[in-house]
Amino acid sequence: MSARERVEAAYRSIRTVDRPEVWISLREESDVLVEADRIDEVVGNGTCLPLAGLAVAVKDNIDVAGMPTTAGAPSYAYSPAVDATAVSRLRAAGAIVIGKTNLDQFATGLVGVRSPYGAVRNAVDPSRISGGSSSGSAVAVALGLVDLALGTDTAGSGRVPAALNGVWGFKPTRGRVPATGVVPACRTLDCVTVFAREPQLGQLAVDLMAGPDGIDPLSGLLGIPSPARRIHRVLVPPADEYSDLAPGWSDAFRAVVLELESNGVEILERSIAPLLAAASLLYGGAFVAERYSAVGKHIADHQPLIGTDLDESVARIILSGANPTASELFDDMERLDHLRLEAAGLLADADAILTPTTTWHPTIAQVQADPIATNSRMGRFTNYANLMDLASLAVPAGTVNGLPFGVMLTGPAFSDDALTDLARLVGATEIDIALFGAHMSGEPLNHQVTGLGGRLRGSVRTSASYRLYALGTDPSKPGLVRVGAGNPGCQIEGELWSLPAEGLGRFLAALPRPMTLGKVQMDSGQHVTGFLVEPEALEKAADISSFGSWTNWKRARAADTREDAIPL
Amino acid sequence: MSARERVEAAYRSIRTVDRPEVWISLREESDVLVEADRIDEVVGNGTCLPLAGLAVAVKDNIDVAGMPTTAGAPSYAYSPAVDATAVSRLRAAGAIVIGKTNLDQFATGLVGVRSPYGAVRNAVDPSRISGGSSSGSAVAVALGLVDLALGTDTAGSGRVPAALNGVWGFKPTRGRVPATGVVPACRTLDCVTVFAREPQLGQLAVDLMAGPDGIDPLSGLLGIPSPARRIHRVLVPPADEYSDLAPGWSDAFRAVVLELESNGVEILERSIAPLLAAASLLYGGAFVAERYSAVGKHIADHQPLIGTDLDESVARIILSGANPTASELFDDMERLDHLRLEAAGLLADADAILTPTTTWHPTIAQVQADPIATNSRMGRFTNYANLMDLASLAVPAGTVNGLPFGVMLTGPAFSDDALTDLARLVGATEIDIALFGAHMSGEPLNHQVTGLGGRLRGSVRTSASYRLYALGTDPSKPGLVRVGAGNPGCQIEGELWSLPAEGLGRFLAALPRPMTLGKVQMDSGQHVTGFLVEPEALEKAADISSFGSWTNWKRARAADTREDAIPL
Repeated sequence: MSARERVEAAYRSIRTVDRPEVWISLREESDVLVEADRIDEVVGNGTCLPLAGLAVAVKDNIDVAGMPTTAGAPSYAYSPAVDATAVSRLRAAGAIVIGKTNLDQFATGLVGVRSPYGAVRNAVDPSRISGGSSSGSAVAVALGLVDLALGTDTAGSGRVPAALNGVWGFKPTRGRVPATGVVPACRTLDCVTVFAREPQLGQLAVDLMAGPDGIDPLSGLLGIPSPARRIHRVLVPPADEYSDLAPGWSDAFRAVVLELESNGVEILERSIAPLLAAASLLYGGAFVAERYSAVGKHIADHQPLIGTDLDESVARIILSGANPTASELFDDMERLDHLRLEAAGLLADADAILTPTTTWHPTIAQVQADPIATNSRMGRFTNYANLMDLASLAVPAGTVNGLPFGVMLTGPAFSDDALTDLARLVGATEIDIALFGAHMSGEPLNHQVTGLGGRLRGSVRTSASYRLYALGTDPSKPGLVRVGAGNPGCQIEGELWSLPAEGLGRFLAALPRPMTLGKVQMDSGQHVTGFLVEPEALEKAADISSFGSWTNWKRARAADTREDAIPL
Repeated sequence: MSARERVEAAYRSIRTVDRPEVWISLREESDVLVEADRIDEVVGNGTCLPLAGLAVAVKDNIDVAGMPTTAGAPSYAYSPAVDATAVSRLRAAGAIVIGKTNLDQFATGLVGVRSPYGAVRNAVDPSRISGGSSSGSAVAVALGLVDLALGTDTAGSGRVPAALNGVWGFKPTRGRVPATGVVPACRTLDCVTVFAREPQLGQLAVDLMAGPDGIDPLSGLLGIPSPARRIHRVLVPPADEYSDLAPGWSDAFRAVVLELESNGVEILERSIAPLLAAASLLYGGAFVAERYSAVGKHIADHQPLIGTDLDESVARIILSGANPTASELFDDMERLDHLRLEAAGLLADADAILTPTTTWHPTIAQVQADPIATNSRMGRFTNYANLMDLASLAVPAGTVNGLPFGVMLTGPAFSDDALTDLARLVGATEIDIALFGAHMSGEPLNHQVTGLGGRLRGSVRTSASYRLYALGTDPSKPGLVRVGAGNPGCQIEGELWSLPAEGLGRFLAALPRPMTLGKVQMDSGQHVTGFLVEPEALEKAADISSFGSWTNWKRARAADTREDAIPL
């Protein structure tokens, strides 16, 4: 697909989904197309650009030259002259920035509700929160509006919204990606993050952005990476450390643990109490003062705007950062160092710790009713990683009760690649699905499959035990039914696609009656997940098995319509 | 020498020198001898102990089981049940702790004057300061009372007193030696240090104490050492960055630079402005709050003791640490990170930075007259190393105007060994000296030479161009004089010794009229540094050249005395 086609598709999707709150500013399509044409030309001339023409959304606390940076506060807006280092590196690799996304103001929050630009609704269930603070970026990727999005993560902002919208969230080792051109939340903890629907692309983006830029001291003062260890051993907390998750989430988490174990990973149950204790230090002590250093003066100077331009919860948290003394901060740093030592001992013998990414998924109304307490519950498993200098990866892991569920792998600094490798054993498993109707290539609902990361594997044919019906739905859909022994069946042609497991889960979650997904026997004898239909839908349906496929029947019907309509 | 002999010698020296202020507590000799006998027994049984029987002094902010730890404040004293990690590791290697040494209270100061246990007088000139805060430890080593001493270093306390007393001061990479059992000054900056008269022994002691102990988090959270680089390139500051040193020190520093260069080290002149800026952050900003976290509560709770038990300057500095806010500390940390990045760039292409260790050497009276300002001048070149996570080594480099002068090599974390290797090219050069009189083996002043690290190389004989006189001094001394061309000369026998350059410098500094040191031609034709005499001293002297050596003459005279005195 050319860059022009990708950009046009992105803007088409943006217009279709009606999610204006995802964006704080969106570039003019015509401007972006000029950039796309230039990329197509460069690529046409033989230049290899690893992200050629990919559409990217950028959280609005990261500078993009020529667009205002607001950090979610109109009063704070400024016009950067140059791209943030992360952005310029993505652009140099051929990526195209489409717009700047909404966020919890000053990246302070894990809910996606704290913004004068509107609460960002969840990609799957718009009554629920998107999670934050990188709310717009996560939703833009989850809805397929862009290929990649940049977020930031100080306490979970790049991971919680990934989990709640069913995408991948990469929080690299602190300092790997320079934070030059990023509005600081807590300067020493902030990480530029990546949202992606597939791990390969997310990791590629991180790698392309990594490396010192000579400006951000933390990027230039990185330690030396430890030699890579891949011992395939993962720690999981005991059940009482995740007993109060949202309904169904504990079971879903245990299922992931079993999945990892069945894929050859050794599982060790270990209390993560030192990590949880560190998490509570982040907001319970003096560390919040770093937020005051970052933007406290702006808020203190604009107190009349609190409640309108400035979010009340955000302003309250950041202004509280003026109070702790430096000596209290040193006391907290000492506590943290002791906890870090305990955590290092915990991780000495494992690749990573596996936890749920967050603890629940409230509605927007719930958060608005109790902004602080609802938010606090979100960060229990994410708050500690940055403080303890750990790398962390949010991994989509299917759905629970129709909503995305995510787990998180957290490992020592520089374990980024090891985490991605491990994660492929969790939620990234691709599952085959046989399609027989409106989701096949060229059919009207095919975008649902591609939007979930689906890849066409080829044509398939069922065993001779099926009949195909044209259902009396509007528009008409095909219904595949297995016939009982002794009844005459046909071989029906369709397409085999593969979908990431979480994509398949979300696909199933969104599937309307009377369609079902079950196992379909192929002519090879193998059973593959595929479309079936509830029997009651067959009452007003026409048996079209003799056509051999939905496509054949549609073609024949189109020809007939031009002469005489075939009665259904 | 057996452990018993070493211990007896140590106590003999301690009684001889009359420097009671060096010690805050000294163990009973009889107790120590029991320990020494045990070590002699263990060694006699064939166990190899790398520090067997070496006498060690321990700064009194480091725990030794069974002795009080005061940190220089009687009100703060407590009785530790176990040794500090560093101490227990030295003891395990056979070292014997003799006593606990005086210090600037709470290790706050670089002068050695801030202690209710008395101002510690300089080893060479008792009217001058010893430097601090590890005052007693440095002087104990310089005076030869012990073989090794432990100090601590937060801003130069392990290096400034090394320089002012003419010994080596090792400040290892932060965290290499655990600080468990050390009263914190600034917990994240404190390093246990070693004073020694020779670099080999100092480095051995550091190596024996290094490695995580599972208790001090900083020792367990060390980064991975970079691969060793030995590019033999050293940065030196331009002259205007050390223009205001004590008289003669700039020249002495430039002489060291030339010495390094003549030994094959490439010298690059580079401004060290980022380091000097970091140094001023240490006390000029919020970092002082870490001292309040360490012992501020004790001082705040004992304010009536200020001026007696608690040093006024120390109390004022530490109490000021209650004031900065955590946000101000984060601001300073950001400034520091930028400076660290600049320093990393500076050091990227060199092994180390060479500077003077300190800037001047005041008298005790000068410091007492203006305690804060005089102290501030001491730390200009030492204050930054710990803040910037650099390793640093104070190297004795001879004397200026009769007082020790020291330089300092400062390099990246983990460059400790490289610094020692480089330092051997500076001040550790051994210089040959030809002795012809009272300093030779068995003669009354020989202890001066051995006390300065001298080693006997063998007998020597001058070329046949000298005459030897017995001077009319009391006691009589020999005077060697080169005769002019055409005048009859003799060959005079003596001893060749080698002395560390700084030892030779101090030897020369202490030399009384009419003795001089110059070049003496040997029978090989080579010119060696050796004893000569001012011509005026010959007026009342007897020519004893025919005896061939001072020893021969003395022997003959002793025999004659038993019969008839030879008239002088």
